[in-house]
Parts: sequence; C-alpha cells; structure tokens
Amino acid sequence: MSHRSGRHFLQIPGPTNVPDRILHAMAQPTIDHRGPAFGALGREVLAGLKGIFQTEGPVVIFPASGTGAWEAALVNTLSPGDRVLMFETGQFASLWQRLAERLGLTVDFVPGDWRRGADPEVLEERLRADGERAIKAVCVVHNETSTGVASRIADLRQAIDRAGHPALFMVDTISSLASIDYRHDAWGVDVTVAGSQKGLMLPPGLSFNAVSDRALKAGGQARLPRSYWDWQDMLAVNAKGYFPYTPGTNLHYGLREAILMLEEEGLERVFARHARFAEATRRAVRAWGLELLCVDQREFSNSLTAVLMPAGHDADAFRKVVLERFDLSLGNGLGKVQGKVFRIGHLGDFNDLMLAGTLSGVEMGLSLAQVPHRAEGVAASLAFLAVSAGARPD
Amino acid sequence: MSHRSGRHFLQIPGPTNVPDRILHAMAQPTIDHRGPAFGALGREVLAGLKGIFQTEGPVVIFPASGTGAWEAALVNTLSPGDRVLMFETGQFASLWQRLAERLGLTVDFVPGDWRRGADPEVLEERLRADGERAIKAVCVVHNETSTGVASRIADLRQAIDRAGHPALFMVDTISSLASIDYRHDAWGVDVTVAGSQKGLMLPPGLSFNAVSDRALKAGGQARLPRSYWDWQDMLAVNAKGYFPYTPGTNLHYGLREAILMLEEEGLERVFARHARFAEATRRAVRAWGLELLCVDQREFSNSLTAVLMPAGHDADAFRKVVLERFDLSLGNGLGKVQGKVFRIGHLGDFNDLMLAGTLSGVEMGLSLAQVPHRAEGVAASLAFLAVSAGARPD
Amino acid sequence: MSHRSGRHFLQIPGPTNVPDRILHAMAQPTIDHRGPAFGALGREVLAGLKGIFQTEGPVVIFPASGTGAWEAALVNTLSPGDRVLMFETGQFASLWQRLAERLGLTVDFVPGDWRRGADPEVLEERLRADGERAIKAVCVVHNETSTGVASRIADLRQAIDRAGHPALFMVDTISSLASIDYRHDAWGVDVTVAGSQKGLMLPPGLSFNAVSDRALKAGGQARLPRSYWDWQDMLAVNAKGYFPYTPGTNLHYGLREAILMLEEEGLERVFARHARFAEATRRAVRAWGLELLCVDQREFSNSLTAVLMPAGHDADAFRKVVLERFDLSLGNGLGKVQGKVFRIGHLGDFNDLMLAGTLSGVEMGLSLAQVPHRAEGVAASLAFLAVSAGARPD
Amino acid sequence: MSHRSGRHFLQIPGPTNVPDRILHAMAQPTIDHRGPAFGALGREVLAGLKGIFQTEGPVVIFPASGTGAWEAALVNTLSPGDRVLMFETGQFASLWQRLAERLGLTVDFVPGDWRRGADPEVLEERLRADGERAIKAVCVVHNETSTGVASRIADLRQAIDRAGHPALFMVDTISSLASIDYRHDAWGVDVTVAGSQKGLMLPPGLSFNAVSDRALKAGGQARLPRSYWDWQDMLAVNAKGYFPYTPGTNLHYGLREAILMLEEEGLERVFARHARFAEATRRAVRAWGLELLCVDQREFSNSLTAVLMPAGHDADAFRKVVLERFDLSLGNGLGKVQGKVFRIGHLGDFNDLMLAGTLSGVEMGLSLAQVPHRAEGVAASLAFLAVSAGARPD
Repeated sequence: MSHRSGRHFLQIPGPTNVPDRILHAMAQPTIDHRGPAFGALGREVLAGLKGIFQTEGPVVIFPASGTGAWEAALVNTLSPGDRVLMFETGQFASLWQRLAERLGLTVDFVPGDWRRGADPEVLEERLRADGERAIKAVCVVHNETSTGVASRIADLRQAIDRAGHPALFMVDTISSLASIDYRHDAWGVDVTVAGSQKGLMLPPGLSFNAVSDRALKAGGQARLPRSYWDWQDMLAVNAKGYFPYTPGTNLHYGLREAILMLEEEGLERVFARHARFAEATRRAVRAWGLELLCVDQREFSNSLTAVLMPAGHDADAFRKVVLERFDLSLGNGLGKVQGKVFRIGHLGDFNDLMLAGTLSGVEMGLSLAQVPHRAEGVAASLAFLAVSAGARPD
Repeated sequence: MSHRSGRHFLQIPGPTNVPDRILHAMAQPTIDHRGPAFGALGREVLAGLKGIFQTEGPVVIFPASGTGAWEAALVNTLSPGDRVLMFETGQFASLWQRLAERLGLTVDFVPGDWRRGADPEVLEERLRADGERAIKAVCVVHNETSTGVASRIADLRQAIDRAGHPALFMVDTISSLASIDYRHDAWGVDVTVAGSQKGLMLPPGLSFNAVSDRALKAGGQARLPRSYWDWQDMLAVNAKGYFPYTPGTNLHYGLREAILMLEEEGLERVFARHARFAEATRRAVRAWGLELLCVDQREFSNSLTAVLMPAGHDADAFRKVVLERFDLSLGNGLGKVQGKVFRIGHLGDFNDLMLAGTLSGVEMGLSLAQVPHRAEGVAASLAFLAVSAGARPD
Repeated sequence: MSHRSGRHFLQIPGPTNVPDRILHAMAQPTIDHRGPAFGALGREVLAGLKGIFQTEGPVVIFPASGTGAWEAALVNTLSPGDRVLMFETGQFASLWQRLAERLGLTVDFVPGDWRRGADPEVLEERLRADGERAIKAVCVVHNETSTGVASRIADLRQAIDRAGHPALFMVDTISSLASIDYRHDAWGVDVTVAGSQKGLMLPPGLSFNAVSDRALKAGGQARLPRSYWDWQDMLAVNAKGYFPYTPGTNLHYGLREAILMLEEEGLERVFARHARFAEATRRAVRAWGLELLCVDQREFSNSLTAVLMPAGHDADAFRKVVLERFDLSLGNGLGKVQGKVFRIGHLGDFNDLMLAGTLSGVEMGLSLAQVPHRAEGVAASLAFLAVSAGARPD
Repeated sequence: MSHRSGRHFLQIPGPTNVPDRILHAMAQPTIDHRGPAFGALGREVLAGLKGIFQTEGPVVIFPASGTGAWEAALVNTLSPGDRVLMFETGQFASLWQRLAERLGLTVDFVPGDWRRGADPEVLEERLRADGERAIKAVCVVHNETSTGVASRIADLRQAIDRAGHPALFMVDTISSLASIDYRHDAWGVDVTVAGSQKGLMLPPGLSFNAVSDRALKAGGQARLPRSYWDWQDMLAVNAKGYFPYTPGTNLHYGLREAILMLEEEGLERVFARHARFAEATRRAVRAWGLELLCVDQREFSNSLTAVLMPAGHDADAFRKVVLERFDLSLGNGLGKVQGKVFRIGHLGDFNDLMLAGTLSGVEMGLSLAQVPHRAEGVAASLAFLAVSAGARPD
C-alpha cells in the first residue's frame, strides 16, 4: 500500500479520534484479569464512570459494542411480549426498535421525520392514554447519531412525571455521553446505554449500562433469557473490581486514561468545547448556503452536524471526493437519508484547528464535487472561533 | 505506585502475552468502520481466520468475550426447551452448561471428575439411547482451561457418526485454537467457539463462531431470541468486509497481525512448539514429585498444565508468594478445585527461556511456600528442552 | 497537568510531525547492535539513504544532531588554519561559520541580508580571485531554515566549475533533504550535511554526511583532530552494516520506516507535494497583505515560509497567542530577525487539511494579536489547494 | 522474515532491555524544542540527573553515544599535547586511550591484563613520580564493560589525594551508572562520563558529562578545538531547560520516565538488586565449573559477568548456538579476549525470572555447544535467588 502523507481526518460521528495517550495506555501488556492489579483497575474505572454518567448508582461495563448495551438494557428489565414506547428519531432509534422486536417485545413506535427529537407532548399524551399501564418502558435516543438531533431528556422525564406513568425510562447516550450534558440521576433515567468509541475517545469494544434502583428491581421479574448481559452477575463481582467473564482488559487501560483526561479537563469545559465547535460548524453550513437536517434549534446536536445535500447531488459521491482528495472521512447518510445527507463529527478529542481543517476539506470537496454553495463557510467558522477562543486552561 | 523492575511473567492460561508487534498494530489510529480501508481489512481477516480454524466455511467475529460466543452458538441454532448434551469436564464446561440453562435449554450434563475429557464411548452410548433424536446438540470443550485436559474431538466425532445421530456438534476451542491441532471441517464440527486472548495472542475482546452449513440451516428453525449474536446479520455484510454494528476496530488490526504471525510460523510449527513446551512442563512437574490433574496421557493439554497441590497446602497461598516474590502470574484453581490446583499457561507467544523462567519461579515458589517437592523440575525441563531445541526456522 | 483536547499542530520548520508508523517502529525493543539482525538493518538503511541523497557514494550516519554533521564535514576534510568560503544566508549559515572558526578554520564570510540565497556570481568572482587556491572549501546552506530561502545549488556548482576552482563543495541540506529536490552526485557536491528531524520525519538524534570520493581523499591530508566524527572508522565497519561505536538503535528502526515511506510515495511526488503546500502558503501570506522574507522567487523555500511582521508588531507575542489559543507551534525569528519574523513549517508528514488548519490558526492569531491583515489568506489558500488537489496515488 | 515466537532475551551488557513504559514515553509526538513545554521537560531532566549522578553540580546532556561523552570530557578540559594517565583495564579503556591520542593528547597508559581494575597503589606511585605535575588528568573506566571488572573509584580518589596531585579525575560510568553505587561529588570526580543505554534503561543516543567546578575552570585554559561538545554553550541555555542545538527530543521523554522509575525504586534498592543478580550469576558460573574473567572479588562487577571459555572452545561459536536456539543475545569477547570470553549482562530493567531464563539459556547452550561443564549452574543460582528473594516493595 502506498504511503499517504499526513494525518487522516476521522470526522465521522464516531468512532472518534483516539488520543495517543489512550492508544499508549492500551498498548500496555495484558495482565491477569483475576489478579490484584486488575482488581484495583476495575474498582478505579467503575468508580470513575459514575462521575461521567452523573450517577451515584452502578455502571455496568460490557466487552461489546453499543448494540449489545441496547440488548442488555432490555433483557435485564423486560419479559417476552412486554410493550415499550419508542420514537422514530432516526436510524439508530429504528435499529433499537428492530432489536426490541426481535427479542420478542411489542414496540409502540412513534413515527418521526428524522429531523426532530422525541416530542415531550406526544410522550405525555401516549402515556396518559395508557390507562392499564401496559407500557413497561420508554426508550429514547438522546443524540441521534444519524441526524444530529438531540432529544430533550429532562423535558421527556417531566412529561413522564406529569403523566404519572411508572414505565422505566431508558436513554441511549452513545453519541452524547461525555460530549453533551447528560445526567442519569438528576433526570431520573433508569437505564442509560453508552459506548466507548465517541465522547470517551476509546476504540469501539466496550459498552455500558448505568442502572437505577428501579431498573434493578424490575430485573427480578424480567423473564427474557439472559446470560452474557446479566447485570446481577456483573454487580456481584464488580464490587471487588472483577468481572464474571474475561473483560476487555486493554480497553480498560484506555478507559482509565479517558476518565482521567475528562476529569482533568472537567465535564463542564468538555460540554462547552463541544457546544462551541457545533456552533462554528453550523455557521459554516449556513454560510455555504446548505441546510441543516435538524430543524429545531433547541435540538441541535453538539457532537455532530448532519447536512442536507442540494437536490440532485449525491452525498456519497461528495464524501468519496473528500476522502480521496483530502483524506477526510465524513459520516454517510444512513437508512432513509442515505445519499441525501452527510454528517460532520465534531466530538471527542478535537480542537479548533482540527475543525478548521475539517471544514476546509468539506468546502473544497463541495467545490470539486460541483455542489452549489458559497465558499464562505470556513471564513464564517473562523470568525466565530477567533472571537470565542479561550486561552489554555492552566 | 512503585516501579517493579523487569518484565512480568503472565503465565496464566490466557489472556496470554501479547507480542509487541500486535500491541503496536492495535495502537494505530482508529478509522472509519464503514470506509473502504476497513472493508479491505475485514475481508483480509475473515479470509485469514478460515485457515486458523481449518475450515472453508464462514467464521463470524463478535466484539465480545468468549462467553458471548458460547451464547451465540446456542441462540443461533436452538429453540427454547431444546435438549443439549454436555460433558462436565471442568469449570468452563460447567459455565457453558449453566449458560445454556439460563437461555431456556435443557441440558443433559454427563458428570465428570475434572481429570478426564469427554468420553467418546459415553457419548456414543448416550446418543444411541436417544431414540427420538431429542438431543439437538452435543457441546464439548476441546481444551478445558480449568484442568489442562484436552478432549479428543476427532474421536468424539466418530462416536457421533457411529451412533448415526443428527445432533449438531459444537466445540469450545477457546484455549486450544492456534495452539493445539484443531480441524473444524475435517472433524465435522458444526459450531466452533473461540476467543482472541489465548493462541491468537490478542487481548480479550473478540470472539468467534466458525459455522457449518448444517448449523446455518438449523438457524432457520431456531426460535431463541437473538439480535446481537445473529449470524445472518453478520454474514450478510461480512461479504464486503463490513459488520452490522460497530466492530472492535483496533482489535481487528491486531487480529490481522496475529494471523500473519501464525502464517509466518506455520500452524504445524505452532502446534509442535506448544507440544514441546507442554512436555517440558510435565517433566518438571514429575521431577518435583507433584501430580498432574490430568490422568490420561492421551488427553494432556498442550496449552496449559494443571498441577495438584500436596494435601494440606493451599494453591492460592503458593500463587501469592510466586506473584509477590517473582512477579509471575499463575492460574488459580477454579470452582471445585479452587485452592487445590494451580495452572501453568504455556501457550501463545512463548519460548524456551520464558518457560525456563516460569518453571524457575514455580520451583522457587514451592520452596518459599514450603511445599514438599524435589528441586529438580527446572533441571529436568532444561535437559529435555536442550535436546529438543531446533534452530531458528529461516 | 491539565489535558488539552485534540492534536497539537507542530508547524515549526523542524522537528516535524513524526508519523505514528515511525513512532511505532522506534518503540520496538532495542536489540544487540553487534548481532546479525542489526547488521542486516544497518545494510538496509545505509543502502536506502543513497537513494534519498541521490548518490552512489557512501552516506555516514552519526548518532548526533545536525550540528554534529556540520562539524564532521569540516574535521574530516580540513586542517587547522584552512580557508573556507561561506555565505551569510541566515542564522544557520552564521552558526556554521562560528563553528568553523572555533575549530580553527579561517572563514571568508560573504555578507548577506538574510533575504537572499548564496549568489552564484559572487561565488564565481570570489573563487576567480583566489589565485593561489587558498580556499579549501565552499560551504552553503541549501535551504536556510531561519529565512525560508533556498540557495540554487546546481547554479553554485556551475559557478565553481566556471571558476575552475578545486575547492570542496559542502552543502547543508538539513531542512531540504527529502522535501526539496537535491542531488548529491549530479550537482557535484563533496559533502552533504543532513539531519533526521525534517524531511525524514524522524525525531532529532541522527545526522548524516554524504561523501564524495574527493572528500574522502581530502581526509588523508586533513589534520583537524577527530575521533567521534571520523569517516574512516565508520566506513570500515559500515560495509557489514555495523558501526564503530554504539549507534542510535531505535532511531535506525525509524529510519528504515522513513526510507520505506519515501520510497512508497516516490521522491518526485514528495517534492511536488512540498512545492504545492509552499505555494498555497505563500498565497495565504500575500492575501493577508503580509510580506515574505524571501525576496527572490527563484529562491522560495518549499519546506518553510518566513513571514515579516508589520512594523510595531512583535512576532513572538503573536506566536504566543497562537500557541496558547490554538495549540499551534510556529517557528520563531532567529538571530538578526528575532521578533521580526515568524516561520510556518510545511514539510515532512503533512497534508492539505493539516495545512488548512495551520493557516487558519495563523489567520485567527493575527486577528487576536491585532496584527493588521486581511482575513483572506485561508480562502486564497483553499482556492489553490482545491484546484490543484490530486486523487490519492494508488 | 519469519516470526519467532516469544520475547528476545537481550542480555548483552548494554544496550539493555528498554521497559515498555520508556518505549511508550518515547513514542509521544515530537514537540517544539524551543517551546515552553520542552523547556519544562529540560529543567526536570537536568534536575533529576543530579540525583542519579549523586552530584550537586551540572550534568550536560549530549545527543550522542557514550563515545562522544568521552571526547567531550577531554576537549572541554585539555590542550593539545597534554599528558593524561589511563589504565588498561580492558577494551573500553583502550578505546578511550586511542581516542585521546587521536585528539592530540599524550597518554601514559598503565598496562593491565584485563582481569583487574585500576590499581590505587600504582596510581599513587605514578602521580608521586610526576614531580612537575605534567599529568593533567587521570582517566579511569569505573566498570569495564568488556571484562566485568569494576575499579574502586573511592580508593583511586584517595590515592590521588595521598599523592597530593592536582590532576583532574575523569571516570567513565557508562555501564555502572544507575546499576552500581557511584558518587560523583563524594568521590571527588571532576568529569563523569555516562550513556543512556545501560542502567538508565534507554536506547542509545544520549550521553552525559557530570562536571565539577574544577573541570569547568580547567575549560578556561583548554585549547583543544571544540564546538559540538562545548560545555559552556550547553550550560548557558540549560538554565532555562533549553539546548544550544536540537536535542534528542524523544529520548528526553524516555529519560524523564527513566529518572522517575529509578526514583520510585530508589537508588539503594537498584544497587542491591544488581548486586543480588550478579552474585546469583557468579554462583552459576562457579557451579558450571567455568572461570570468571575478573580475579579480584573486590572488583566483581554488578552489571555484567565475563566468563572464560575452556581452552579449545570458541566463545563466539557458543554464542551463535545460544542466539539461534534460544533467542538469547550474550555479549561477545572484545579486542584481546575475542573468542575467549562471553559476557552476561544483568543490568537495567531485569528481574529474577529473566535471570533464570538467561542462565538456563547459557546452560543449555553449553550443552549444545559441547562445552565441558556441570549442568548445575541454574540450580545453584535458583537456590541463592530463592533464599534472597524479597517481597515486592510497596
């Protein structure tokens, strides 16, 4: 393979750029997962994760992709035929719905146009209509990775409370955790689903469930078969820092480093950084004269931006140009919006000049792919970045 | 934490020592799992795995531990209430049995004393007795990691054939693949279960199912719920080198390197190397005057050796001395044999002098822990290693 | 230390960004520098370097910085009191002159204004005036790292030839080798001086002398004391791939990788890439309304661009803003031009979007530091990069 | 190249095994050697080195091999024709002598048989005989890497003092620093020469001079030409953590880590560890019935052991067998003892089981090479290691 000069720009909305510090941590020798050193590491990461999820409760770590954590959330709490309420906010909500059905659950799937988040009013209405409390769980994707739309979790919680409905509340934060403010406890979430490869800056391979007391109790009655995903097996040995089967040892090294890095920067600053890059990106999109997929500014995602291609232009052809000419990977349109949108990831280990390079690649790519636009996006973005630049926090 | 000089000796029977070459491969930047470079990598590793499993059929890769691959083997082929035949060869066979029952299967569990493998005669007899063909699958652990006993898979296959029974044949090769000769196709195995962290020399985090046509067909009728573990979803996109959900990208880099390394050495040489180290280890054990857990020399494991402690001596106290004084991790006794055996792993990326260091640590540890023995094990081992040493294969 | 998000932009004109591939190569275990594996490596890199220097003659590798290779060039060829002709093209030429004088040589130092390269006409004139052939060597810095001015080596060679003068011709290519076309043999250079940390994409720590037959012969009469730098000691054992004292083993691993990468890309493409980035950078500078330090377009450097600050503005204050706000390291003004210029390095492992990010950082920094400019440099650069972008060479 | 399983045993007396922690530190991205982060690193390592050399004075770091630091010691303090007193303790003392003569110094070289260190009585006698104080420096190799003989530096200092001679005292600690107790200040040494690739556990590429006030003052009169090696240039900018020319940036990252590791373990423990491994090795040699090159037990080296081959057996043929069969690199006999001795390095990042593996490789190699010996060396060594094993220092 011929050498390609310079660094690849990985600006899909996850996996994100893994910092060298984490890659080096992961390259340490594998150790005995039943020995004392690994136990100490286990206790450290299990404690540190609580801060990231903003919870006092347990967080379970699976050696699995995020899809596995979706499955775990359901099989630990529900029984065959149980009814769950989901919202069609995009491709990942649709995949979660399909997964639930394959497990034997009955899904009430609130239709959506992929340009808006889950609607708190609709949620309240649906729950109020459920007089016999047949709905056992409400499942929402916090940040739809396929659309760049962030549902308002706190508002959705309030809707559930207003309806006085006992359904469990499950939230997928795969592309929001450690990027967009998210509060498992304060927002009364029962199961939070997350993965390693986005805001946590790790390669894929670990996924997570933060679990409320109510969710744990629900597990007592849940009759979906489970073994690999069983929370109780995990919690029983997690107390000493161990795991019921072989954990993803080297990703745990990286996880420790990721938690330290997030703690060093501080979650508040992490969220502010993502908000600033998202705003700079949206300014570029508008200056190009292109349209955001997300239509409600209350729901703009801070971790990625999905951009609609002008009619008659194929997003994937554009992305191919950008990859081949500028070594920049952009996210493709998924499912219903395939070919119609491209996605710019601006989450994880990222900074002003990486964003400037990314937007430059998009702008040049639009030109080379002959997509109608004004070549003013980068300039608009730089103008905003310059005035909002802070000094290094020391 | 205070620095400890020198290299840790990780001689548990997995995870094994991960070579620098693989650690460095894994430390490469994460890339777009939907982009062309990752597709090429996917095709390469999926093709390369066939050679390792000695199969022409597909091998499915899960971002999960080996326990997940156990679950996958069952949920892709069986229905609730199906009967499976398993053999109590040790702790891992017992865990697989427990897992099967939690999934809703009915397990006929042939009892064992943890010192012998699955008995082909018993298998034949059980299957002949199953006139109505209620047994849907026979599940055997090839190399019991908890006991150092290797069941004779080819003989078990012949027993099934002699009985003329149509049950699927599923084999766990977690601690034998790429260490002990194993032939998925030639031995008529339907589902082979494997993991990354033993003979493949990777950290934990990937696991595998090699799948026969019969197993794939059985999936059409199988009614256990499945989503994460579903083979069909995998195979549909594996053809182009992709995966239905985010794969463990950086472990795939390591997997490519592992396959290359195994190909460079050649499987025959890999197997011979493991056999030689196992023999050297057993000679040390005998010279110490200690007893092997495995009682049948046809079933000696080439990847690990489990040693019985003399009565009145605790294996874990001994292991603690060895770890603290000599920075050597040995495997503990699991389940029924906890405290009664210790296990020496001699698989994976390993050589004569690492083995000599390992056995030296055991011998000194026996002395420090005041375990009755003759201090002649290392000498016996070196005598064998010297006469059997081959020159570097160039 | 608090974590700073994202990747640092190291855009000084060397050390340059070291690719992961080289960092990983260097992180391999150190081996016996007198063993067969290291001998094979030695032969490989010594052969590969010939291609990079475009020579058939020997290239000597020192475990030392480039300054050491300056010293080596002189002590291997000259005697105390010998006269050498040098050109004041900038800071590095001045440092080489000072070094020569400290070694006991007499330097004729042709004065310069740091905005032009060595003048072939002046060279010819000086040599013609040297009737008694007292000048033993002509020393020129090919690419002045302090000014971004590249002297025309082929023209200087012709000037020497026209004068019919036997002086040795020594050229410093520290910031041009493997970035700007340079031909040791074709241009009749006797000693080429180079270092590892620029176009070769390695960390600092190795330096080089490519040596002509004439230079080797001159060594027979040279009476400057030498030991560490002695070519003869090197050449005697280099034939077998070894070195007379301990070489910089791990940098040699990186050097092998660097040579492979340059061979994969091809020197022609490497030079064209650098030329394109340099042109894009100069377009940005002009669009900002700033002045290049280099005044003669025949002498524009392709590896770095030095930019004059408007009067009344301190370059180092500006650089400090850029470093603190945008994590971008720019080169400072050295010696006579301290505080008056800043330097943008665009050599080594670099690509379009890294350049776009770099220029964005400069443009935003100019704004934050309130340096008068037009914020049109990035746009001018992108316009050029887009039209000149080639597809990936496959 | 075919893969060779397991880890290479690098047991030459330097370069030594580089710990992963240091390799990873060195694999961090190269940064601006003139920027604030590098200045902070420079101050940290320059301060930390004082502790390692046990000095309050400055330590100068050269981007060069140890041979360069020899040259630096001389050119910074002496003038052409100056007389220096050296002792022929082995190959490295002989190389230093040759280097001194090439620089134009006059060397009084006290002959030796390569089995003993520098004799304090001879030193005293020679200095007393030097009535006109013509001897400007006494140069001694602390630990002769070619012979495993350690001269007694404190005794030599006392000899100088008894003679009341003003000569500078220069000591090469290349293979003793951070392995064998060494005290620059307490022992009144004027220049200590050291390198990175032995007790400091780094790859080769850095070397050091610790410098006394007297040595610095001597530099004022010293007329040997110098530039690269000049202390004054270094010290002028070292105060702020910088260097007069490009330093070996990535080795500095490793150096910081090495200093931290030595501080974590504590120098006293480091010295005790080396003493213990040396004693275990000598016990093995005696049990094999082989002869140590070093004849005086007061001068046994703690960092390496040189072993005489029985007459009629070639050490290099034996070493070749050991390398090819057991992937173990042993040191060769150098100069006068080529083919007659082999050397076992037991310094740096090393532990009991690595030593056991090493000695096992030697013992098996002796057998395969048909060298007469008793196969009892490993057993003797283990017996000693077991009784002297300490628990991990926590």
